[in-house]
Amino acid sequence: MLVRDLTDGQELDQVLLVRGVEVRAKRDGGHFMKLALGDRTGQLTAMIWDGVEQVRDLCQAGRPVHVRGRYEVHPRWGAQLALRALREPAQGSFALEDLLDGPPRPAETMEEDLRDLIATVQDPHLRALLDRVLGPHSKTWERYRRAPAAKLYHQAYVHGLLEHSLTVAQGVALMAGTFPGIDRDVAVTGALLHDIGKLEAYTTDPVAIDLTDAGRLQGEIPLGYYRIRRTIEELPGFPRDVAQAVLHVILSHHGSLEHGSPVVPCTREAWLVHMVDNLGGKLGSFDRLEKELPPGATWTGFDRGIGANAYFGPISDESARRAA
Amino acid sequence: MLVRDLTDGQELDQVLLVRGVEVRAKRDGGHFMKLALGDRTGQLTAMIWDGVEQVRDLCQAGRPVHVRGRYEVHPRWGAQLALRALREPAQGSFALEDLLDGPPRPAETMEEDLRDLIATVQDPHLRALLDRVLGPHSKTWERYRRAPAAKLYHQAYVHGLLEHSLTVAQGVALMAGTFPGIDRDVAVTGALLHDIGKLEAYTTDPVAIDLTDAGRLQGEIPLGYYRIRRTIEELPGFPRDVAQAVLHVILSHHGSLEHGSPVVPCTREAWLVHMVDNLGGKLGSFDRLEKELPPGATWTGFDRGIGANAYFGPISDESARRAA
Amino acid sequence: MLVRDLTDGQELDQVLLVRGVEVRAKRDGGHFMKLALGDRTGQLTAMIWDGVEQVRDLCQAGRPVHVRGRYEVHPRWGAQLALRALREPAQGSFALEDLLDGPPRPAETMEEDLRDLIATVQDPHLRALLDRVLGPHSKTWERYRRAPAAKLYHQAYVHGLLEHSLTVAQGVALMAGTFPGIDRDVAVTGALLHDIGKLEAYTTDPVAIDLTDAGRLQGEIPLGYYRIRRTIEELPGFPRDVAQAVLHVILSHHGSLEHGSPVVPCTREAWLVHMVDNLGGKLGSFDRLEKELPPGATWTGFDRGIGANAYFGPISDESARRAA
Amino acid sequence: MLVRDLTDGQELDQVLLVRGVEVRAKRDGGHFMKLALGDRTGQLTAMIWDGVEQVRDLCQAGRPVHVRGRYEVHPRWGAQLALRALREPAQGSFALEDLLDGPPRPAETMEEDLRDLIATVQDPHLRALLDRVLGPHSKTWERYRRAPAAKLYHQAYVHGLLEHSLTVAQGVALMAGTFPGIDRDVAVTGALLHDIGKLEAYTTDPVAIDLTDAGRLQGEIPLGYYRIRRTIEELPGFPRDVAQAVLHVILSHHGSLEHGSPVVPCTREAWLVHMVDNLGGKLGSFDRLEKELPPGATWTGFDRGIGANAYFGPISDESARRAA
Amino acid sequence: MLVRDLTDGQELDQVLLVRGVEVRAKRDGGHFMKLALGDRTGQLTAMIWDGVEQVRDLCQAGRPVHVRGRYEVHPRWGAQLALRALREPAQGSFALEDLLDGPPRPAETMEEDLRDLIATVQDPHLRALLDRVLGPHSKTWERYRRAPAAKLYHQAYVHGLLEHSLTVAQGVALMAGTFPGIDRDVAVTGALLHDIGKLEAYTTDPVAIDLTDAGRLQGEIPLGYYRIRRTIEELPGFPRDVAQAVLHVILSHHGSLEHGSPVVPCTREAWLVHMVDNLGGKLGSFDRLEKELPPGATWTGFDRGIGANAYFGPISDESARRAA
Amino acid sequence: MLVRDLTDGQELDQVLLVRGVEVRAKRDGGHFMKLALGDRTGQLTAMIWDGVEQVRDLCQAGRPVHVRGRYEVHPRWGAQLALRALREPAQGSFALEDLLDGPPRPAETMEEDLRDLIATVQDPHLRALLDRVLGPHSKTWERYRRAPAAKLYHQAYVHGLLEHSLTVAQGVALMAGTFPGIDRDVAVTGALLHDIGKLEAYTTDPVAIDLTDAGRLQGEIPLGYYRIRRTIEELPGFPRDVAQAVLHVILSHHGSLEHGSPVVPCTREAWLVHMVDNLGGKLGSFDRLEKELPPGATWTGFDRGIGANAYFGPISDESARRAA
Repeated sequence: MLVRDLTDGQELDQVLLVRGVEVRAKRDGGHFMKLALGDRTGQLTAMIWDGVEQVRDLCQAGRPVHVRGRYEVHPRWGAQLALRALREPAQGSFALEDLLDGPPRPAETMEEDLRDLIATVQDPHLRALLDRVLGPHSKTWERYRRAPAAKLYHQAYVHGLLEHSLTVAQGVALMAGTFPGIDRDVAVTGALLHDIGKLEAYTTDPVAIDLTDAGRLQGEIPLGYYRIRRTIEELPGFPRDVAQAVLHVILSHHGSLEHGSPVVPCTREAWLVHMVDNLGGKLGSFDRLEKELPPGATWTGFDRGIGANAYFGPISDESARRAA
Repeated sequence: MLVRDLTDGQELDQVLLVRGVEVRAKRDGGHFMKLALGDRTGQLTAMIWDGVEQVRDLCQAGRPVHVRGRYEVHPRWGAQLALRALREPAQGSFALEDLLDGPPRPAETMEEDLRDLIATVQDPHLRALLDRVLGPHSKTWERYRRAPAAKLYHQAYVHGLLEHSLTVAQGVALMAGTFPGIDRDVAVTGALLHDIGKLEAYTTDPVAIDLTDAGRLQGEIPLGYYRIRRTIEELPGFPRDVAQAVLHVILSHHGSLEHGSPVVPCTREAWLVHMVDNLGGKLGSFDRLEKELPPGATWTGFDRGIGANAYFGPISDESARRAA
Repeated sequence: MLVRDLTDGQELDQVLLVRGVEVRAKRDGGHFMKLALGDRTGQLTAMIWDGVEQVRDLCQAGRPVHVRGRYEVHPRWGAQLALRALREPAQGSFALEDLLDGPPRPAETMEEDLRDLIATVQDPHLRALLDRVLGPHSKTWERYRRAPAAKLYHQAYVHGLLEHSLTVAQGVALMAGTFPGIDRDVAVTGALLHDIGKLEAYTTDPVAIDLTDAGRLQGEIPLGYYRIRRTIEELPGFPRDVAQAVLHVILSHHGSLEHGSPVVPCTREAWLVHMVDNLGGKLGSFDRLEKELPPGATWTGFDRGIGANAYFGPISDESARRAA
Repeated sequence: MLVRDLTDGQELDQVLLVRGVEVRAKRDGGHFMKLALGDRTGQLTAMIWDGVEQVRDLCQAGRPVHVRGRYEVHPRWGAQLALRALREPAQGSFALEDLLDGPPRPAETMEEDLRDLIATVQDPHLRALLDRVLGPHSKTWERYRRAPAAKLYHQAYVHGLLEHSLTVAQGVALMAGTFPGIDRDVAVTGALLHDIGKLEAYTTDPVAIDLTDAGRLQGEIPLGYYRIRRTIEELPGFPRDVAQAVLHVILSHHGSLEHGSPVVPCTREAWLVHMVDNLGGKLGSFDRLEKELPPGATWTGFDRGIGANAYFGPISDESARRAA
Repeated sequence: MLVRDLTDGQELDQVLLVRGVEVRAKRDGGHFMKLALGDRTGQLTAMIWDGVEQVRDLCQAGRPVHVRGRYEVHPRWGAQLALRALREPAQGSFALEDLLDGPPRPAETMEEDLRDLIATVQDPHLRALLDRVLGPHSKTWERYRRAPAAKLYHQAYVHGLLEHSLTVAQGVALMAGTFPGIDRDVAVTGALLHDIGKLEAYTTDPVAIDLTDAGRLQGEIPLGYYRIRRTIEELPGFPRDVAQAVLHVILSHHGSLEHGSPVVPCTREAWLVHMVDNLGGKLGSFDRLEKELPPGATWTGFDRGIGANAYFGPISDESARRAA
Repeated sequence: MLVRDLTDGQELDQVLLVRGVEVRAKRDGGHFMKLALGDRTGQLTAMIWDGVEQVRDLCQAGRPVHVRGRYEVHPRWGAQLALRALREPAQGSFALEDLLDGPPRPAETMEEDLRDLIATVQDPHLRALLDRVLGPHSKTWERYRRAPAAKLYHQAYVHGLLEHSLTVAQGVALMAGTFPGIDRDVAVTGALLHDIGKLEAYTTDPVAIDLTDAGRLQGEIPLGYYRIRRTIEELPGFPRDVAQAVLHVILSHHGSLEHGSPVVPCTREAWLVHMVDNLGGKLGSFDRLEKELPPGATWTGFDRGIGANAYFGPISDESARRAA
């Protein structure tokens, strides 16, 4: 059963991931432990009042544990697990991907949407480029499919890059029909490839995403620029102007020098991809913050990802009804 | 005939608007005059080598003149009018709106699109608010329909506010379907009303758009916030949360304090409207810059609206073909 | 006896407020507790070496406790209370307002000064506005009288708004006589009302001052602007120019966009109120820092309120004598 | 007759200072000249349509000219002088100080006020310091009395430093009575001496105020710090703490590193002087802008001194009456 | 004879480059012309009082002219040429490189120094890289040798890139011996190649240096990074760590994101090259400003290259003697 | 034996300095202690699992302890001391200067280098100034020799100021030969004296370096400026221009107002000293970070001194060999 689907009073007997551990002194001299447990859909709290020493080795951040107990929603303290037992999970009793945070849609669905979107690109050179980089049998596809989108802030999980790139490219495709003067093929291709440098810039360990040496010393934007320019130079007859248009989108997609782009956007396509990428990052941060929000809370703390406190208050009964 | 549709060698006999005048000394002691002439679709240059004094009164920036001559595209100097005659236009021989820069679509079409979009808002309170402010018989509608969107940079012309608000709201509606968790009604309403303060913040003179005293002393955002909060308080039973959600969109739509919003965006809807508004402003600047670009040029000078030089270079034959 | 008035060696038997609690492990495995205790005039430290568990529930930040012991000024560690007993305070044995930090002058005195200052405003419309908002029988007066001026930094206590607004208005009135060209009535009215938005922007719980939803989503400046503009519109014949002059003071009083004003000061009155408000905030921060300063210390840590470390070193014997 | 006192239709026959000259080509091939003429109280415009070449040498910015003509206030173009004659002024026919911009009060009055204010300083060491630097027979007094306060922005005229320092010190003295905890003697002394470095940092040519080499290479703040520290070290028994308190006011009076203070204000006295100095500078800019404002205008252009456009619109009849 | 070597009273009969032209109206209705003429070592002024129209075509900025006249140093107006004749230069009568601003040392000398410095690099892979890119027979060498270092500010002339890179690399080599822990080979190689992207980023027209499309759309840093990474990948067995160390120097050499580096310096070598490059740029700006300084002047106007006014005042007789 | 020279498996029996102490609860209710121990060449970790209470008084940051045990390099945890005994050091059993962090070279060597460098200054006035301030028998020499260069970041140890000033001056001397137009004597003198204000701005306690009251209230730059200007005024016949050139170097050496210089560099000498000082500070930060780096680590955390994470990864075998 997924954490998101638990209801007050429900019995649990399953594996969850330890996300945080705190040990504190009790009045009587002993210790108690506060655990944050979760799966890819949500998080709850469990307190261990006795026998903390026995489970200390087991309860380390990033490890799965098998728990039994009762799920209770406390009016003031939020979702809690009244724990009765905690043990090492039996082998094969869980799938790591169910426990790690992940995208709301399965990777297969996202891949289908990606293939559909690529099929709308009509310029033969850009299609060839996309096939070379994202084609199902290309060397990079499998890494692109699994890579996270970030270390923090948004889509910091397996398939995060695919989810983020696809959503941005879909948004870009829609906007290219609303605003005049945009070369849709260049914009969609740029959107699909804008973060390709993350393949080299991030490690692929799903539990502990981090920057690689190359990511820190060369930067994700130059790494992506190099990969795509190099690939383009291997494609015969690729028009120089089209190449430059796509490379400019990749190089400028952070929008300004102080955010790490070595050039600022000078074309409509570059502005469009930058803006929808930025929007996708902000909304992805709201998704992350909403998952972490204790039940009943409406405000998060200050979040660097959105530069503000996020508000998840009620909007209205009508709105709530429509959202349901 | 519109300037955009002129071809090399064509004869002109029509009214254009003087957009710029320069008088310089000639070698022989006399003067010559360089005129920038245009209509709402483009601009060309005309030189007057003799008799400058006779036409000096006529040729003032912002005045219409009747010109006769031949349109020529010079390989180096761009589009020029080889002028044969220039005189005061006959009364009724032109429509000022054809000469002033304006939106690419007629206001009627935009109004239809606006009505269609409003019809998709399902929350009854928000619908009531939109009817009260933008309904065809409301006091504000006629001003909203004619107001410019800005003094400079983008959509600085009659109907500019309608064009800008509509495009932003359409983009917001599309994005609300792409990204999860967004209250579409709040976002679309906020998008349609985000710049409503410009009704009081700008003068309505189509030739010389400027800020009013209220625009400078109170600011367009507080003016819009006051108008909408005041209107909402007159609507019976308007839910407090919905009201606050829309007002927050208006107040925060510049995205940061240093750009004049007294609060930063704290909700998905506020981020969405801010981002699409920002994108709409940037792409509107590209539209303006493209109109002013001399034929053959690919780069503009540095433009404060986009914070960069804009590039309108060729992308490829394929692209050009598709764009045609 | 007030903390400010204690002298070395004095016996204490009274109620103080717990402002901070720290529990640490002792070498022998047990714990000791370090308490920060205070009233509205100052603060001292008390150590509990034994029986920490018994008093743990009692000793929580924000709760009053009855203490007995001896006040000692340690040459190195500052003011300490050598505690002999600590218990729950008897009902009625203390007034919460004596314990909470508060203004140095009683609210009644400040109200008198306020009434005197309002009486010097000669413009009948501004007088009517002040009566409507701050008149003794107005709906807002009681809240204005009790509201805090801030959550942190300065005058973060009951009556703080009254104290801050009055001092700023008095300073503004003095300066209006020193510098030429200032409309004293507009400036004094603007000074008295500049922070009126805080009535809605802050909760009124004296122990835990915080921002309201409206404070975060709409901002204290728009809230104040709305209230005053709305009130003015209900006053018959209020001159438009006077209204705009006062509203401009309220909107611009943070002095710059990046500090949350949607417009920058464009008039002498607006600059004057901004500057004296700013000065009042800085000096209020010094007052707060001085209360928290351990005896004998001359430097505080870096303080965000003044953007520096504050120095309270000796100036000279003469100065000290004069200050006494 | 002073420019401030001229009324529509009045005949002029007197010396004014040329403040600006523009020569432009006429339609007939000749030139016309537009002069900005003024005295210390205001400014007007005069056009010369014929014989420009004859007066070109005479009409140079910074030179006095004798003019005859009629003063007319044009509804659209503002104050104009309909010029009938213009010639070199007879020797002795004018006082340069009447023509140069200057303070509204005579220097003698300001000196009296300064002596009165110094007399209120009770600390004997600070009094000794003020006597040494500003005493009527001190070496520096005469320069302090005549120096300008700035090159641009505010009080950029003879006696400007005296006017500015005195007003700031008077404001500081008033505020020291309103806000608690301020050492009035230190604050007033610091206010009187805060800009003393300008004696070396500016040239004393009343027509063309400029920075000296020392002003540019060493900076006005270090120059003033050096002078006062050096003077203090010559005064026997000057307490080290008092010295440091005054030097800190001088060093930190620009308020932040980026405005050129090598240290930020850490004491109440330093904040007070910084704030009132800042306020005095802003209001001084309003004075300058108001003098330059064409009759009938309400807005100035963007002014770097106040970081905004200044507004001099009407406030109300009542206000106007009171101001009269 | 070079401009730098002219002395008061000397006769000139040679070709100079027109650097600036101003035409102004004379009192009698005619015009006069003010020319700025120069060669690669300095600049002088010449006035043409009569016959301006005859020479107008000849005197255009960027064109060489043959002048005859007398060189005079005016006490107030600086170096002037009292012109007697001016004509089109005879073919072959001058070398363009003598007229254009250029480095103080001949390119041959700089090439020798470069070869000497490369010879001190001991790492065989870095030597191979330098040979491939800067070897006398490499494809890039000739362009590197002739390219300018910038469009404005410093070394904006033929051979400027060579001069700048060499000086920076020499400085880096010296510093690598002063400070511990620096890999001299990586630092020197990085210094020689840090600006290699300018080969594609700038046009090579010696008279009108400008950015190319690639320079604007891709940026000089990514262009250089691509070229060197691509070259390294063609060199067999090039160690990955060494490659990354050099690429990091190139990518981070602007020192911060806001100056266009996509990554900030993380290694000693990167900091060293950034700092010496920065120093070289500042001192190169002083060289440029000193050439343009009118004789007798000590201060330049505000210069964006150094972020200040530059001072070239006397230091002392001793200093002057030593400098001679 | 110095920490830098320890090898895996080596026995230790010597005094080290306690640099950090952490006490944490064990599972069984007791505590363990983690010590950071070091000398001037490096640092290691030691764990105390039992008897923590007995050594708690002894183990305080900043105190020397005598330890016995075995040095082990753990593949994952880095350098550890397997501790067998820990006691109070016998009197005279260690030299504090061996334990405190310090410069890599002995002070005597640095003094010799300083004397050599001073001997190259040829201007007699600057030589006299250097003798007066840094001469072996001057009052300031002994303090200059022992003072630290900073509180944090770089050379925060005894002799740090000497080390930093000497290295900067040596670098400046080298660069003065590479770049044209620099007055070497002014630059070297400025470099040797640029941080002289630190004599008064920092306390001299080698264990706890901190700012003095004068350092905070007056700032190190004005303090240094005062000292040198005062000294110069006592030297007969010191040329005004030379004085100003050196004072400008001192005042502007932080490079910009926001870094605390009251004036920005306007001369080549000032830019040179600023840049080499800045470089010296950055490289000094690398030295500090490298000493603290656990064995095997390649990246530090984000460091404010260099504004980045520092990388100490391998460069290549060749490089390593050369470095050995």
